[in-house]
Amino acid sequence: MSGLLASIKGPHDVKRLAAEELPQLAQEVRDLLVDSCARNGGHLGPNLGVVELTIALHRVFDSPRDPIIWDTGHQSYVHKMLTGRSDGFDALKQEGGLSGYPSQAESPHDFVENSHASTALSYADGLAKAFKLRGERDRVAVAVIGDGALTGGMAWEALNNIAAVKDLPCVIVVNDNGRSYSPTIGGLATHLAKLRVNRRYEDMLEFVKNKIGNVPVVYDALHGFKKGVKDVLAPQVMFEDLGLKYVGPIDGHDEQAVEEALRKARGFGGPVIVHALTQKGRGYAPAENHDEDQFHSPGAFDRATGVEKPKGRIWTNVFSEELVALGKERDDLVAITAAMLHPTGLNAFAEAFPDRTYDVGIAEQHALTSAAGLALGGLHPVVAVYATFLNRAFDQLLMDVALHRLPVTVVLDRAGVTGDDGASHNGMWDLSILQVVPGLRIAVPRDGERLTELLREAVAVDDAPTVLRFPKGPVAATVEAVGRLGEMDVLRSGEPDVLLVAVGPMAQAAMEAAVLLDAQGISATVVDPRWVKPLDDALADAAAAHKLVAVVEDNGRVGGVGDAVARLLRDHDIDVPVRTFGIPQEFLDHAKRPKILGYAGLTGQDLARDITEAVAKRSSALENQPAQG
Amino acid sequence: MSGLLASIKGPHDVKRLAAEELPQLAQEVRDLLVDSCARNGGHLGPNLGVVELTIALHRVFDSPRDPIIWDTGHQSYVHKMLTGRSDGFDALKQEGGLSGYPSQAESPHDFVENSHASTALSYADGLAKAFKLRGERDRVAVAVIGDGALTGGMAWEALNNIAAVKDLPCVIVVNDNGRSYSPTIGGLATHLAKLRVNRRYEDMLEFVKNKIGNVPVVYDALHGFKKGVKDVLAPQVMFEDLGLKYVGPIDGHDEQAVEEALRKARGFGGPVIVHALTQKGRGYAPAENHDEDQFHSPGAFDRATGVEKPKGRIWTNVFSEELVALGKERDDLVAITAAMLHPTGLNAFAEAFPDRTYDVGIAEQHALTSAAGLALGGLHPVVAVYATFLNRAFDQLLMDVALHRLPVTVVLDRAGVTGDDGASHNGMWDLSILQVVPGLRIAVPRDGERLTELLREAVAVDDAPTVLRFPKGPVAATVEAVGRLGEMDVLRSGEPDVLLVAVGPMAQAAMEAAVLLDAQGISATVVDPRWVKPLDDALADAAAAHKLVAVVEDNGRVGGVGDAVARLLRDHDIDVPVRTFGIPQEFLDHAKRPKILGYAGLTGQDLARDITEAVAKRSSALENQPAQG
Repeated sequence: MSGLLASIKGPHDVKRLAAEELPQLAQEVRDLLVDSCARNGGHLGPNLGVVELTIALHRVFDSPRDPIIWDTGHQSYVHKMLTGRSDGFDALKQEGGLSGYPSQAESPHDFVENSHASTALSYADGLAKAFKLRGERDRVAVAVIGDGALTGGMAWEALNNIAAVKDLPCVIVVNDNGRSYSPTIGGLATHLAKLRVNRRYEDMLEFVKNKIGNVPVVYDALHGFKKGVKDVLAPQVMFEDLGLKYVGPIDGHDEQAVEEALRKARGFGGPVIVHALTQKGRGYAPAENHDEDQFHSPGAFDRATGVEKPKGRIWTNVFSEELVALGKERDDLVAITAAMLHPTGLNAFAEAFPDRTYDVGIAEQHALTSAAGLALGGLHPVVAVYATFLNRAFDQLLMDVALHRLPVTVVLDRAGVTGDDGASHNGMWDLSILQVVPGLRIAVPRDGERLTELLREAVAVDDAPTVLRFPKGPVAATVEAVGRLGEMDVLRSGEPDVLLVAVGPMAQAAMEAAVLLDAQGISATVVDPRWVKPLDDALADAAAAHKLVAVVEDNGRVGGVGDAVARLLRDHDIDVPVRTFGIPQEFLDHAKRPKILGYAGLTGQDLARDITEAVAKRSSALENQPAQG
Repeated sequence: MSGLLASIKGPHDVKRLAAEELPQLAQEVRDLLVDSCARNGGHLGPNLGVVELTIALHRVFDSPRDPIIWDTGHQSYVHKMLTGRSDGFDALKQEGGLSGYPSQAESPHDFVENSHASTALSYADGLAKAFKLRGERDRVAVAVIGDGALTGGMAWEALNNIAAVKDLPCVIVVNDNGRSYSPTIGGLATHLAKLRVNRRYEDMLEFVKNKIGNVPVVYDALHGFKKGVKDVLAPQVMFEDLGLKYVGPIDGHDEQAVEEALRKARGFGGPVIVHALTQKGRGYAPAENHDEDQFHSPGAFDRATGVEKPKGRIWTNVFSEELVALGKERDDLVAITAAMLHPTGLNAFAEAFPDRTYDVGIAEQHALTSAAGLALGGLHPVVAVYATFLNRAFDQLLMDVALHRLPVTVVLDRAGVTGDDGASHNGMWDLSILQVVPGLRIAVPRDGERLTELLREAVAVDDAPTVLRFPKGPVAATVEAVGRLGEMDVLRSGEPDVLLVAVGPMAQAAMEAAVLLDAQGISATVVDPRWVKPLDDALADAAAAHKLVAVVEDNGRVGGVGDAVARLLRDHDIDVPVRTFGIPQEFLDHAKRPKILGYAGLTGQDLARDITEAVAKRSSALENQPAQG
């Protein structure tokens, strides 16, 4: 690397540059963003939008003494470059390379690693309160949050608290591109969205400049509000009602203007909102012109054309198509997404049935309870979210949906190991925490055929909620059943040694393990329960006919299907030993899914080795055991 | 019962009354409320505040065709009386009697049973969308929500979505008493709170009437907003910014005014907010004058004086006092509550250290992530919530606190069976879902001494989050240890038959069971792990020295400590049979805690019987088992 960026070892180097050099720095940052994401994929669009904003932040604030908290974290690439990590962009999101999110291990400039949305204001609230209480008067907590993340309830809770402390040293930067994930939905955002639909972006900036001038104005809630702006841009009204100071709106690509606004905000001595208008994908034509999501998070692509490398058929495609088919058959079927219309594949349903599709914003809690309302009203909602984000709505699924035995189908995409988006994107929690929900039924398809079959079975349930979960990536090759045992598919018969219970897509590895075990003289039956909650009692009978039961799941080892199988056997007084295989219960570093499955010991070879050992230990234990009774 | 109330069999009877008769009806309702709550306890204050509001709702809307959704549900007593359930108030909250919350089993007028806050608007959103989609043009979804519940993030998510649909048949009644739980906290509420502090309630109503007249005015967001009101009452500004119609503020105790406002709202054909000012505890002097919470939810009390029957020393008292002691020793200790300052006992800490106490409103998500921020800033936060409400912040505990290994101590009051508040108040989930959180440590004290001891150990942990949980009610009698095994207390030695693992307050029942087992010739060791996550490896060794392991916990059977013990043994290749005892995994009907523990088979007698059976089955299974190996 050469140029200005090569000389940036930390924020002090950014501060040292002359104002005239900043456009060049911005250009170099954009070049590196595009190069790096073209190679390995990444959150290109959001980062192209925050180049000038991030430069200004590091010129005005004193990171890490002033912590900068990036909401969701995927727009921290520029921040990484300006804090001395440009070299790492060769291996962005690769094993051992830079994380795609802030990382405490990488840099003291990174405070918060979690990538779930709408949290930044709450962290900043706590940090600023700590500074105040400890008398660290020179420190300011800075939160950067997108307009989309403001639709999340947590952001509201935090604003309400931040506003209550008049001298809280807290600066909130609203990065308003009007397009967090898909176009932001909802009452408040409607004002902005309308404006953006009616005018081209450049016109709008011009318009804003004419209306309130180039210099940001500081409004006070009770005194200085200019009524004229209200009809154009709504957010400040809300912020002022809460008692927050407001600076803006400013052109987020005018570095000098942003710097000036941030300096005013910093000097205020109390909570301030800085409202910056930015353009997602800015400066890279294929992203700017991308009509779906401005290259929110493409895979590897061709730098010149912006054409992504083909992905092949993924699980999401199978779900997407089958849901449209079901929608044609049943007009009581409605679909809900939380700002993830395209990533969950619901866009096809939305095109076919626009009146029956609801995008609620980044608001998983509301998604589930609104679904409860729809179901109370006689419809069958299908809520499609990433598995890790359902954690946000656990209480709503339990208390609002399940307590009322409502027919809501929750479809979890990106379940199990997702890999290169790091710890907070792995969907390794659902099969554990959902076990406790009374009446809930959970299906895990092992391949595309089973996904369509189980989705049909799920939406046919009319007296209880159902969950269907599948992983990220290419749909698994078909594994045909050789028989049926109650609700379960028998994939391979092999009494009397080992009963291998394979959860969904782990069928593949289980079948490989069975073949390897066979070569060791250990016979293995392989079953796929299809519905892992409730488990079929036939599983208990099958277990009694074997010497060892092994359960394999693409979920945390703690509390998942393995524990459920063990409990089923205990409750049937069947004391056949059980061994459970799953993801180690830890926050996993980012790497590709196959790598992590290998680390977790979930390949066919690993399973065969560990089961062989367990059988051997068990045999020797029985030989050494004194007679009991 | 005599009088008007006795003639009310349903909403049609309320509609039939002449306006002049309504004050008498209101008086009869209040008398029954006070009588009933004096006898058995109950949510008196909130219900006294909604008498006229509820009468008006049932005169204007056509329940159940127009569903009325009561947020949190504890203010639905009047609704129950007006829908023909007055007779049931003799046995309110008693086993087999009326639930203290809406109940689908009781009446078709009750749609939603869940009592967690801030959900009503989301249900209403879903219901109204269903009516719209199904072409049921005469139906309106009505949500009644307190000003306190509006501080919850879900309410914001719902408002944002409701406002986006211009013709959504949805009426939102904001029941603004300024005192949901404790005085509402936060930026928005500050306006109201200030006003209420400065003026007496009657003055305020007078003031409002003078300002905008007796007849409610319908404002339009873009046109009719009257600037003059803004400085007095803030909420409508926010609602209007979102694009919602607003009617109010109205005197919530002027039945005619409320009726008129609701009729206008109903006729609007789109989402409308009706803002009613009410007084918690209205009409019963001891409640009106109660300076803590206007008799939010007293136990049984003397009707004439309003003096509650003494409760004795409860778990909450022990925690409350010890936290103050710790606060004196460590000035980095801060406390957080989510609108539950008194119920969690944090009020004592708040009095001693007002600067170090944060009440964030009904905002559990923010509570946890703000705690993460405080911990990142060098403090040790103690977050005190009811166990069932932590479900709301599971994602934040996992991703914001635990992922960053932050020293935050979460104290769960009302863990396990709470009983008479019904299914959604039982804290039977935490020991299961928290098992999956990497690095989290969980302590369960068996008595008051252990609570102080474990609280001290918890706040001493500086590299991981900790959870401490204890039940509702009188603190358990002390059970002294006879020895120590690693981290565990040995309460009784009794090899080689049964190892009884007693989680926290189940020690009492376990000790009783051990004595009964002894009489059957079965020797039982009893241990209390104290820290149930992670479990001490010494437990595995102890298990290996027994023929059967039994685990007893005041938590759902699925995924709790029982499953964790079984997993520990499996992972140590110890195949001693395990039996687990806990609460059946179902939504429990309301009854007193001892009754439910009996139903769950968690008394000493139940345990002794079931363990005796398990030992007998195990012995006969071993005798009949062919030699293996």
